[in-house]
Amino acid sequence: MTFWTDSMLASIDKMLNPKSIAVVGATPRMQYGGRFLNAALKAQDRINVYAVNPRYEEIQGIKSYPSVSDLPEAPDLVGIVVPYDQVLDVLKESHQRGAKSAVVISAGFSERQVDDRRDLQGQLGAFALESGLRICGPNCLGLANVRDDIWASASSRGADGLTGPIGLICQSGASAFGPFLTRAVENGIGLSHIISTGNEADLDFCDFARYLLDDDGVKVIAGFVEGFKDARKLVEVAKLAADRCKPIVLIKIGRSELGTRAARSHTAALTGMDERYDAMFAQYGITRVRDYDELLEVSQLLAHSPKPVQRGVAVVSHSGGISSLTADMCGQAGLDLPPLTDQARDGVNGILKGFGWAANPADVTGFANSESFPEIMGHMAGQPNVGCLVVASAGADAQAEQVIAHRDEGLKHGKGVAFLWTGTRGATSGLPMLKEANIPIFYVPDKLALGLSALQNYHSWRDLRLSQGFAATQNMSQQQTQALAGLRPKVGISSSALSEHQSKQLINAWGVPTTREILAATSAEAVDAAQTIGYPVVLKVDSPDILHKTEAGVVRLGLQNAEQVAAAYDEIMSNARTHAPAGVLNGVLVQELVTGGTEVIVGLSYDDQLGPVLLFGTGGIMVEIYNDVALRLCPINLEEAREMIGQVRGAKLLQGFRGSPRGDVTALAGALVQVSQLAVNLEGQLSELDINPLIVLPEGQGVKAVDALALF
Amino acid sequence: MTFWTDSMLASIDKMLNPKSIAVVGATPRMQYGGRFLNAALKAQDRINVYAVNPRYEEIQGIKSYPSVSDLPEAPDLVGIVVPYDQVLDVLKESHQRGAKSAVVISAGFSERQVDDRRDLQGQLGAFALESGLRICGPNCLGLANVRDDIWASASSRGADGLTGPIGLICQSGASAFGPFLTRAVENGIGLSHIISTGNEADLDFCDFARYLLDDDGVKVIAGFVEGFKDARKLVEVAKLAADRCKPIVLIKIGRSELGTRAARSHTAALTGMDERYDAMFAQYGITRVRDYDELLEVSQLLAHSPKPVQRGVAVVSHSGGISSLTADMCGQAGLDLPPLTDQARDGVNGILKGFGWAANPADVTGFANSESFPEIMGHMAGQPNVGCLVVASAGADAQAEQVIAHRDEGLKHGKGVAFLWTGTRGATSGLPMLKEANIPIFYVPDKLALGLSALQNYHSWRDLRLSQGFAATQNMSQQQTQALAGLRPKVGISSSALSEHQSKQLINAWGVPTTREILAATSAEAVDAAQTIGYPVVLKVDSPDILHKTEAGVVRLGLQNAEQVAAAYDEIMSNARTHAPAGVLNGVLVQELVTGGTEVIVGLSYDDQLGPVLLFGTGGIMVEIYNDVALRLCPINLEEAREMIGQVRGAKLLQGFRGSPRGDVTALAGALVQVSQLAVNLEGQLSELDINPLIVLPEGQGVKAVDALALF
Repeated sequence: MTFWTDSMLASIDKMLNPKSIAVVGATPRMQYGGRFLNAALKAQDRINVYAVNPRYEEIQGIKSYPSVSDLPEAPDLVGIVVPYDQVLDVLKESHQRGAKSAVVISAGFSERQVDDRRDLQGQLGAFALESGLRICGPNCLGLANVRDDIWASASSRGADGLTGPIGLICQSGASAFGPFLTRAVENGIGLSHIISTGNEADLDFCDFARYLLDDDGVKVIAGFVEGFKDARKLVEVAKLAADRCKPIVLIKIGRSELGTRAARSHTAALTGMDERYDAMFAQYGITRVRDYDELLEVSQLLAHSPKPVQRGVAVVSHSGGISSLTADMCGQAGLDLPPLTDQARDGVNGILKGFGWAANPADVTGFANSESFPEIMGHMAGQPNVGCLVVASAGADAQAEQVIAHRDEGLKHGKGVAFLWTGTRGATSGLPMLKEANIPIFYVPDKLALGLSALQNYHSWRDLRLSQGFAATQNMSQQQTQALAGLRPKVGISSSALSEHQSKQLINAWGVPTTREILAATSAEAVDAAQTIGYPVVLKVDSPDILHKTEAGVVRLGLQNAEQVAAAYDEIMSNARTHAPAGVLNGVLVQELVTGGTEVIVGLSYDDQLGPVLLFGTGGIMVEIYNDVALRLCPINLEEAREMIGQVRGAKLLQGFRGSPRGDVTALAGALVQVSQLAVNLEGQLSELDINPLIVLPEGQGVKAVDALALF
Repeated sequence: MTFWTDSMLASIDKMLNPKSIAVVGATPRMQYGGRFLNAALKAQDRINVYAVNPRYEEIQGIKSYPSVSDLPEAPDLVGIVVPYDQVLDVLKESHQRGAKSAVVISAGFSERQVDDRRDLQGQLGAFALESGLRICGPNCLGLANVRDDIWASASSRGADGLTGPIGLICQSGASAFGPFLTRAVENGIGLSHIISTGNEADLDFCDFARYLLDDDGVKVIAGFVEGFKDARKLVEVAKLAADRCKPIVLIKIGRSELGTRAARSHTAALTGMDERYDAMFAQYGITRVRDYDELLEVSQLLAHSPKPVQRGVAVVSHSGGISSLTADMCGQAGLDLPPLTDQARDGVNGILKGFGWAANPADVTGFANSESFPEIMGHMAGQPNVGCLVVASAGADAQAEQVIAHRDEGLKHGKGVAFLWTGTRGATSGLPMLKEANIPIFYVPDKLALGLSALQNYHSWRDLRLSQGFAATQNMSQQQTQALAGLRPKVGISSSALSEHQSKQLINAWGVPTTREILAATSAEAVDAAQTIGYPVVLKVDSPDILHKTEAGVVRLGLQNAEQVAAAYDEIMSNARTHAPAGVLNGVLVQELVTGGTEVIVGLSYDDQLGPVLLFGTGGIMVEIYNDVALRLCPINLEEAREMIGQVRGAKLLQGFRGSPRGDVTALAGALVQVSQLAVNLEGQLSELDINPLIVLPEGQGVKAVDALALF
């Protein structure tokens, strides 16, 4: 699947590296149009900037053209700051004049939540696709190539020369050019680009992210997203990002229903169920954070840290209390602070001479501000089981110089440094030097710990995925195609459900073992079937129109002989006719009775934005009370299946909990992979699938679907 | 229980409000002794400051005395900065000279983790108690009365006149006078006191907190604690703090094993199991936070906010993205953002005139920086279901003035304001004015949401507790005393356990219903007992020496007649003798078979620092897999018992989950209260109690303990 064409990427390239910008709706006053022109003019020494507004001869010291058609050249980028009902005309005229791309600042489109404005936005998007003049916006604040200091934005803010390897993409312009930019500048975190995508009539978050992946100067993509237009594009971006080792760090609205409500009222993008997004982010190595400070701090850490050569973290501080607190937060974030090696402890003790505490975390008292500090850092970071050194302190420039030198040396051995700054954020010594040198800095211990955890998780995830590849969709086999063809016509009258037997034939064709069972149309057939299968047996009605069988009284368990089977057949058929007089009754399923093993649930659903989602959970009431499930986008591979199983707490029951036999986890993982393949193969046809219960038998004995329900 | 004497509080009073300070170990150089003298001398215009050091005639411009004995007056406070082995002598001499209190900066005591230094610290503590010359420290950085600008501290930092109603107490001096103080100054958060307690040889965190509760100028107590010397003092402080509406906000090390390890190596205070502390904090209204910034921000919010008149929160921002993110975080923190009333929506729309979005959260675009903003805030906050207004913006002084005026007016109606500052932290317009006016400020949305949630939770908790009182210990009844006397001698030989029957008699004496059962010493007695109880019955061995009955083969369930009972009796006794040849065998318990109902677990343990802890959890494997339990310190009242039950997810099973009958939650709550009383009554004797399972029968039918085990 490819979402991106060369011409689209070329259009984005013109947007971010224009040789000429025209600002339609430029004004002398510092409103949106005036600010856009003012921002663009700052690059006047390097690019051509044109003002377009028929009401003026000259604006901000340059000639104003009556219209785009009158421009002396075809502009690479047109900034559009006109009333909403003139935007489409300006776009058409710009296209005619040969413009390559447009940034639409104008608001008044789908965010108004009324049909005609939504339609108008749709027309912008359609025109962009059709004409090839691609659009950023509308209802955005524009974008900036920070690295080359070219600002095509209606914001009055600039970044004062601060550049770095983090590409920032936000839907909300007031956020991008508000707190995200100001905190980046304040915290010395360098950005390569700032892109606000607004309502995304045409280009969206994923398109710009895809473009930035090709930019060698971009090491991390940081984003703030209220809702994805098509989240599957994000999966493709994430796979490519993993390949190129460019982490994606995101704030995604939707943690709570309130945020979703707010998001709907703002960008008009649909926000999906949050748990599914969490699953997707984990599955594709996307780091989710909670706020702009965290987004920037974690992005800076990821951009400026080597892949940790070891998982161990060493912490050194001038304060015992701060070292305790830092260690506590690191522990809670799942980081490992290995005890000092004898050599390191003796080395540090040799310096401390009875003061402080040579341990991990180390409390080195005033020695953190002494000539001996480099030696202490050397002992702490030099241990073979340590990949990252945390310095928790607030020294002056002398300490900063020591830390920077230590970092530079450590990089040669793949070891990183992070600083927990415990002084004021406005400090004029030490801190500015650390920022300037791109030492990753945090200001409170829990954020530091979350950041380091994100760094380690990203690289672990990436190593595993690169070694195994991402799961790929397999084509349907002939047998599967035939099985499906045989089943579709049998879909029931009053519903789009398959019967249990049909549902099991379906999953069976994708390799999921099911109970041995025979469909019987008469009492005598049922008795014969029972004989074939072997007692005891289970009898259930087979009908696409009776979904809740137990409640309908159409299930009989543990039948021991022909007499019981014959009686049960009659009762079931009678109850079924009472329960669903007009329903399709295929007959009665005679089924083996499965004993032993552990009940689990496997399910599929289709999300509008994320596509097929696989669910795995423990069986019985535990899944309902504890919501003990794992989710993944489909397809998955075997390793992902094992991760899913590991994530479900109740799956401890499969590991020989309390003396029960170990379950066949290998077979379970295989079944999950097969169901995920079924999910992608049947996308667009299937709407839901429940295998409940799937019985996981003891090791070596496989799994068996006891009941299944497929809804088309 | 009273932990605090008038003379102790008077000694602390002298420490924090000294008319004279002597610094023993003062030096000209700015080391610890020099800094202490330097800090004290800043109050020289108001109090007498003396230097004591035989090596100098004069230090920092004042006369130096050879010893404390030579001082012209008995000092209120002696600051001690001498080598560890001289501290006790200085204390003794100070006491002789009539000194009232001492701050011991000197280190080298129990933090060294060696016996002789621990002993020496013990001697300091003992001397303080005996002499009445109370001690802060050792291994601390001293303390400060910020309000009156008197600093008895070896830190070089001051607070530059910034005072407020927050009393700060930290064990770690380098933390108190490090990040806590510098961030407070930077964020404009005013402190009344800064107290570092160090190793707490004598006075501890709770003693100083208790003292501050009597100070009318202190509204909030903020603390950083690595471990409590006696956590039960904290319970008493918390109760009194609730009475006086002075919230306690704490960072407590121990979130992870790593933090605990670090804490042990630092303050030598024992750190208990973290879940128990969480339970205690929730039970006694203590707000637990994660870092110094959060500690200060939440304390400031609590100190400067009225009790919310309504739970609803209204959010207004100039940015749609920020309003979404803020709403999302508020929702996740459990806050309610009620939809706008028609009146408010029409009012805001009347101003926005088609721009932005009149909702909750509201995106009011540039109107946040207009003359209309007060009117917008009025509409948002004026709604009857709103108790607090959040302004998420970053305006100039004009906006700050509007917000301050709105806050001042709102306070008359019990409505608060919190500001989410989205600009730089170093802003020179707007922000400083907001700080000066004590508007509570947060800098990222999730911290704001956590803060507001803490504010609401504190007042809800307090209202409930004040209306119901705290649970009180009841004295043992005569019947209970007798039951206990009858049981103690029967404690088994090889263990300190009671048998099942004895354990049940014990809990029965405290009002917990148990199974009907008769102890039979012969097969014939067992048959008679079964007749009396009624079939079916259960037979179990009764022995304090066989704790795992099922594994030992000494339980028979569902016996239907005399023959089965007689046979079961013989088998059980035979298995019991094989299993525990030397054990006490009281005979066989003949017990009613309890059917129906839901299994739960009730347990007791005793924590060295927290005393008796009550555990309630769901039964079976759920408690083990999901760790689905609630903990409380004992005793509890009925409302707390109901809260415990509500906290356990599996207790949904008691609420008629999936059509099963509702459980007798009233009886369960009563049993929890009774067990909590048993816990306090038997403290010092009992060591553990398990009631597993306790069966919760359908509504109106009570509860019944089916098995119990008491360990003394």
